[in-house]
Amino acid sequence: MASENGMTRREELLAVATKLFAARGYHGTRMDDVADVVGLNKATVYHYYASKSLILFDIYRRAAENTLEAVHDDPSWTAREALYQYTVRLLTNIAENPEGAAVYFQEAPYITEWFTEEQVAEVREKETQVYEHVHGLIDRGIASGEFFECDTHVVALGYIGMTLGAYRWLRPDGRRTAKEIAAEFSTALLRGLIRDETVRVESPLGMPDVAGAAKKAPA
Amino acid sequence: MASENGMTRREELLAVATKLFAARGYHGTRMDDVADVVGLNKATVYHYYASKSLILFDIYRRAAENTLEAVHDDPSWTAREALYQYTVRLLTNIAENPEGAAVYFQEAPYITEWFTEEQVAEVREKETQVYEHVHGLIDRGIASGEFFECDTHVVALGYIGMTLGAYRWLRPDGRRTAKEIAAEFSTALLRGLIRDETVRVESPLGMPDVAGAAKKAPA
Repeated sequence: MASENGMTRREELLAVATKLFAARGYHGTRMDDVADVVGLNKATVYHYYASKSLILFDIYRRAAENTLEAVHDDPSWTAREALYQYTVRLLTNIAENPEGAAVYFQEAPYITEWFTEEQVAEVREKETQVYEHVHGLIDRGIASGEFFECDTHVVALGYIGMTLGAYRWLRPDGRRTAKEIAAEFSTALLRGLIRDETVRVESPLGMPDVAGAAKKAPA
Repeated sequence: MASENGMTRREELLAVATKLFAARGYHGTRMDDVADVVGLNKATVYHYYASKSLILFDIYRRAAENTLEAVHDDPSWTAREALYQYTVRLLTNIAENPEGAAVYFQEAPYITEWFTEEQVAEVREKETQVYEHVHGLIDRGIASGEFFECDTHVVALGYIGMTLGAYRWLRPDGRRTAKEIAAEFSTALLRGLIRDETVRVESPLGMPDVAGAAKKAPA
């Protein structure tokens, strides 16, 4: 059954719970609060979700599935196109549902308390796929000679932090669109900030000793 | 009074509470839990901290002060040196106390529930200073011609997410030291990933239409 705004009851319930979890935390939100805000009695809420943790898991599953769709790669792209496309789609997702992203990150340290082992395994599996995609496309750029050598592991983790971390401040009605922000992020990473070609390649950090360390640091 | 490992009782209490808050969340940790793990009775714990929220505030204040120390700028540095130094000091701090950083970020959405208005204002003031430092040093690089034009606001927020977000995976005993990771992060942002100078400057995103958008997007 669809409500006035075209969402099903279940979707409405999920949207309300997402906002409450984002604002008060999963631990700080009771099923009663969800029922109150959505205007249903608790029995009806339990009809849709047999437990509070199943709501949280649904938020997790949807966020992870959206992110996985965003990381889809097209082998015909250059590595820089792939990085840009990843960034656009990820930031667009976040701008569309910042509360979902917030809940995902805010509850991440505690999910082993709320989820079954199978649920945790499903979450970890999807996170690994996202990491491997970003890692893989940087590797692809290095292999083709498009990118400089770097510690792909560290740079992938860093860029995931830069992009996914945008849930803290990215809003659908912000000054810049998700696509514009994605272009800024991708350009910053791909082109770098330094203008001067010699400086850029030979001493990006402004200190010869550390520039050497950055090029090839001992493991 | 110092305990066996040289920490005062208060420091020991703070260290234990930080670990518990990081693992279970502030909301999910009781003063009894802190007292149990540190091996003191609850009255003694309350002697050091009159409330649980004062422990959290102490964690916040210390993390913020360490971060502010890390963002100290030296006007004799080039902008790229300043960015590198910020990164090294910030990541070194995080590696030394990843649980403190975790608590800071995990509880951030809820601090208005636990802190007084004055405490919240103090936290926000320090966060603004950190943001302004990163923003300012990128601006300085643009003004001197060292850096390309970019949306400093967006790039500063992104780089703060990349660096501070490292609390999720940066560990004191990791494969790479904090300093090595800082060199990777700074190099990625300053030098960029793309090798070829023409491609890098003219079409970093691999798509002429969006490269133009990135250079100068409408506000």
